[in-house]
Amino acid sequence: MAERHVKVGIVGAGPAGLLLSHLLHLAGISSIVIEARSRAHIEGRIRAGVLEQGTVDVLRETGVGTRMDAEGLLHHGTILKFAGEARRIDFQDLVGKSVMVYGQHEVVKDLVAARLAAGGEIVFEVADTRIEGIEGSEPKIHYTHEGRARTIACDFVAGCDGFHGISRAAIPADVLRVYERVYPFGWLGILARTPPASEELIYARHDRGFALLSMRSPEISRLYLQCPPDEDVALWPDERIWEELQVRLAGGEGWRLEEGEIVQKGVTAMRSFVAEPMRHGRLFLAGDAAHIVPPTGAKGMNLAVGDVQVLARALEIYYASGRERALEAYSDTCLRRIWAVQRFSWWMTQMLHTFDDASAFDRRRQLAELDYVTTSRAAMTTLAENYVGLPLDRGPQ
Amino acid sequence: MAERHVKVGIVGAGPAGLLLSHLLHLAGISSIVIEARSRAHIEGRIRAGVLEQGTVDVLRETGVGTRMDAEGLLHHGTILKFAGEARRIDFQDLVGKSVMVYGQHEVVKDLVAARLAAGGEIVFEVADTRIEGIEGSEPKIHYTHEGRARTIACDFVAGCDGFHGISRAAIPADVLRVYERVYPFGWLGILARTPPASEELIYARHDRGFALLSMRSPEISRLYLQCPPDEDVALWPDERIWEELQVRLAGGEGWRLEEGEIVQKGVTAMRSFVAEPMRHGRLFLAGDAAHIVPPTGAKGMNLAVGDVQVLARALEIYYASGRERALEAYSDTCLRRIWAVQRFSWWMTQMLHTFDDASAFDRRRQLAELDYVTTSRAAMTTLAENYVGLPLDRGPQ
Repeated sequence: MAERHVKVGIVGAGPAGLLLSHLLHLAGISSIVIEARSRAHIEGRIRAGVLEQGTVDVLRETGVGTRMDAEGLLHHGTILKFAGEARRIDFQDLVGKSVMVYGQHEVVKDLVAARLAAGGEIVFEVADTRIEGIEGSEPKIHYTHEGRARTIACDFVAGCDGFHGISRAAIPADVLRVYERVYPFGWLGILARTPPASEELIYARHDRGFALLSMRSPEISRLYLQCPPDEDVALWPDERIWEELQVRLAGGEGWRLEEGEIVQKGVTAMRSFVAEPMRHGRLFLAGDAAHIVPPTGAKGMNLAVGDVQVLARALEIYYASGRERALEAYSDTCLRRIWAVQRFSWWMTQMLHTFDDASAFDRRRQLAELDYVTTSRAAMTTLAENYVGLPLDRGPQ
Repeated sequence: MAERHVKVGIVGAGPAGLLLSHLLHLAGISSIVIEARSRAHIEGRIRAGVLEQGTVDVLRETGVGTRMDAEGLLHHGTILKFAGEARRIDFQDLVGKSVMVYGQHEVVKDLVAARLAAGGEIVFEVADTRIEGIEGSEPKIHYTHEGRARTIACDFVAGCDGFHGISRAAIPADVLRVYERVYPFGWLGILARTPPASEELIYARHDRGFALLSMRSPEISRLYLQCPPDEDVALWPDERIWEELQVRLAGGEGWRLEEGEIVQKGVTAMRSFVAEPMRHGRLFLAGDAAHIVPPTGAKGMNLAVGDVQVLARALEIYYASGRERALEAYSDTCLRRIWAVQRFSWWMTQMLHTFDDASAFDRRRQLAELDYVTTSRAAMTTLAENYVGLPLDRGPQ
């Protein structure tokens, strides 16, 4: 059985694991990334697509932002639609920052390319992954690859393998506290070959449910409709999807969605989830392995990027000085920001979706909230400062 | 049967009816106020006690602010307590405005005195009040007083007789839309002879429920505890009340409530309620007759004061020029502000109270919201601008 040693063993080649490996490399700290799926799979998996200013900054500053800057779409604001009106939140004017529309899978491609170009090791298509000994000083990651059992011995394990990964389960159940909210709806998402009907994202609250207009590129639209959580996609032929999008996204002078070929269709369930603590012994959870947000507000990948920045800095301090304080503070440091983001994602979700059990009062209160948040400068600023990203070291400023 | 004519017949001598009568008098418009209760009753009825900046301004500017300025307590901020910490929201710093702590019954006393001194007519202890003919051009108010049937013929009727009054029911049921939310808790309120343990109000969120420290004067504290909506006061002997207040209001260095004689005890149910439209024909609803807010955020009397300012101005325009546009806009003008205030009162209520059906996620999300709203300047500003009062002519700025 082949056993190798690296400083940090990383489980999962999503944005969290790949960026962590990249940041560690820049700090001279060795790592290996193992991933259950193939390279083609992770590079083609369509997920989120809005990068906070801080996420853009770290990619740029660490040399993996070139394609993002060339192909990404810089957004200085966003649109809220409700009660037939379109109102804009101007991020630049309010907080002097912006976001970048650039697909998560594109970030993954850029990070994979950077790691491989730098001689980094990413082992794809591993199986039977098991983490062992996290309470000791040399934890191990066991897995099989190309039919052979392998072991990585390391100083630390980073569990970056997502909500369904194996890392979180390595923390004893009596240590882990779990907070969860499952929403009574999902998002039916499509990719369509049609130019986005708006230069900026449109978040629409309609009596028939939430809708979102987003985009992948100047030619490809990404559109979403609130639907039942376990909706059968077969119930949504293309015509019905366009019809519903036209109704829910209507509003604003003469505005109309241009329809086009739908090239992908899928339903996503929505939940809020946090596992605490994010560290146990020598295992550190990062990204979706520790927390899930509903997609309203586009925070999932950004939270993961935040986690691994905190973790990389803490590891850097440890290897430079032997001081463990930053590693010990990792969970608390991340969780304050994570709960602030959970609050924001919950707030956006409850403000924009329809709820079957909502009373007439609740619906009017929801419209009053949208009216307030699009007319009070202070309220607009709360939306903007969260949307472009709260600072890393704490929740709010 | 004695019948008299005035321009505006006002049902109800609470802050709404009295202030309306006062404002109309200053504009040279005749009115009579009729009231089911005695003068002693309305002048002794303990209700809200926090006046928005705009409420303070209108009382001052119209000559009924002298005692308020002498005896009221000017507050430049408020305290939120949660998770054992006390955090201050500085209204002056954030929005350059303040609030005045001065009991609603004191405002009522000042307005009654001003009306009577100016020769105004307030008929107390009326019964069998009935409003008739609001769809015509000369509505009538019928009532009995000292055993005799009376009638006031008028151009307009102002229904200022509160949630349980008769005015709202004069609007046909098929015209009136009602929005309502009843909260699964109430407030146990006490008046106590003990100096307030804080110069500013303290809103406390505790796992055992909400608590509020308020005051009537430098010698009299007003304190509240979240309790079941139909709580029996007998279950709360004085010792239990103090004990619970000490626990829920704890937090902040060395802070402790000084206990004292409890001179009044009562339980208030909590609801959000809006009736629309606020005008039908020649009848205008104002104050609690049209809307109720939960007391968190202290908006009830301020909403009433806002309504009658809008109504007085509209009547003034009508009598000066014959133009009805402002009267026609009355309901919409008020409702935008009212829904903004409903949103605020709901938001304060859900952020500060415990809910039996809350999950662990909900509780953490609530704490994250309190953390955010006491650390982000933008979020603090949203609290402050609502607390000191939104402008009259619309919802938010």
